Amino acid sequence: MTATRILGIDPGSRYTGYGVIEVTGGRSRHLACGRINATVGEMPERLLKILRGLGEVIAEFRPAEVALEEVFVNKSVSSALVLGQARGVAIVAAAQAGLPLAEYAATQVKLALVGNGRAEKLQVQHMVKVLLNLREAMAADASDALAVALTHAHVRSTKMRSGLTLNKAWG
Amino acid sequence: MTATRILGIDPGSRYTGYGVIEVTGGRSRHLACGRINATVGEMPERLLKILRGLGEVIAEFRPAEVALEEVFVNKSVSSALVLGQARGVAIVAAAQAGLPLAEYAATQVKLALVGNGRAEKLQVQHMVKVLLNLREAMAADASDALAVALTHAHVRSTKMRSGLTLNKAWG
Repeated sequence: MTATRILGIDPGSRYTGYGVIEVTGGRSRHLACGRINATVGEMPERLLKILRGLGEVIAEFRPAEVALEEVFVNKSVSSALVLGQARGVAIVAAAQAGLPLAEYAATQVKLALVGNGRAEKLQVQHMVKVLLNLREAMAADASDALAVALTHAHVRSTKMRSGLTLNKAWG
Repeated sequence: MTATRILGIDPGSRYTGYGVIEVTGGRSRHLACGRINATVGEMPERLLKILRGLGEVIAEFRPAEVALEEVFVNKSVSSALVLGQARGVAIVAAAQAGLPLAEYAATQVKLALVGNGRAEKLQVQHMVKVLLNLREAMAADASDALAVALTHAHVRSTKMRSGLTLNKAWG
């Protein structure tokens, strides 16, 4: 049975969470997670840190697919612009490496992990730990990144079971 | 007298305008302008096109400094997010090349080129042609990119005349 590595990303203008899992059949294993700290310096420097940080994660763990949480922006137009900047850099980091990218809404993540599209954030964080058999505390951004990676693993395996071919999300 | 090349960028999720000028003393000369068409394909592909397109312009013309128009977003939160993505990629293209980046509000561009912060867009486009001695028609995105490059040239020379040192905008 082939193992597929999935990189989940939770982009943010301050912290960008990442999580890498390895999926074999229906089982997911945790490989790495963390967050890129882009809180210091001017915007170009901060965005470059996100690009390089994700580039390093991709180079080290060689994921085959990338999953990103779709943003539901309930804030101001100006904070949407700033978040968009970080998001664009995360997307381009995956694209540069030639990796297919899938996006999931927060409700899809909640539904896949908790079985309820309106689940609380803490329930999602709890399920990430249960599903990956993790005990240590982790940053919320890292947990969110693992959650979207697990969602992609779930959707992927469902599609495969139903005989659908997986389309590359782009290209 | 040393010549300095300035790359102006007008990022957009569909078309990203660019313009390169060479400034010698108080004089600006047009080197190139155009727009990167990122209207086709999925978002990762489109953002990658912007990154690579700007990378090619930078590699070909080797600008020393980059100027970007600050966005005034009067649209929806979701369009701000999409514009932010393109903008983040443009910023990171400059940062990757180690180029200092300056940002100017639309009112600063209008003030520098027309002498009136509330000038019409057509007046700005007209002044771009006059200042750079251009006759051909050009895309609005390309003209906007040249406008912000000219604004940077203007601000730069004013700062130099007044004895201020130019700070790198980041790093």
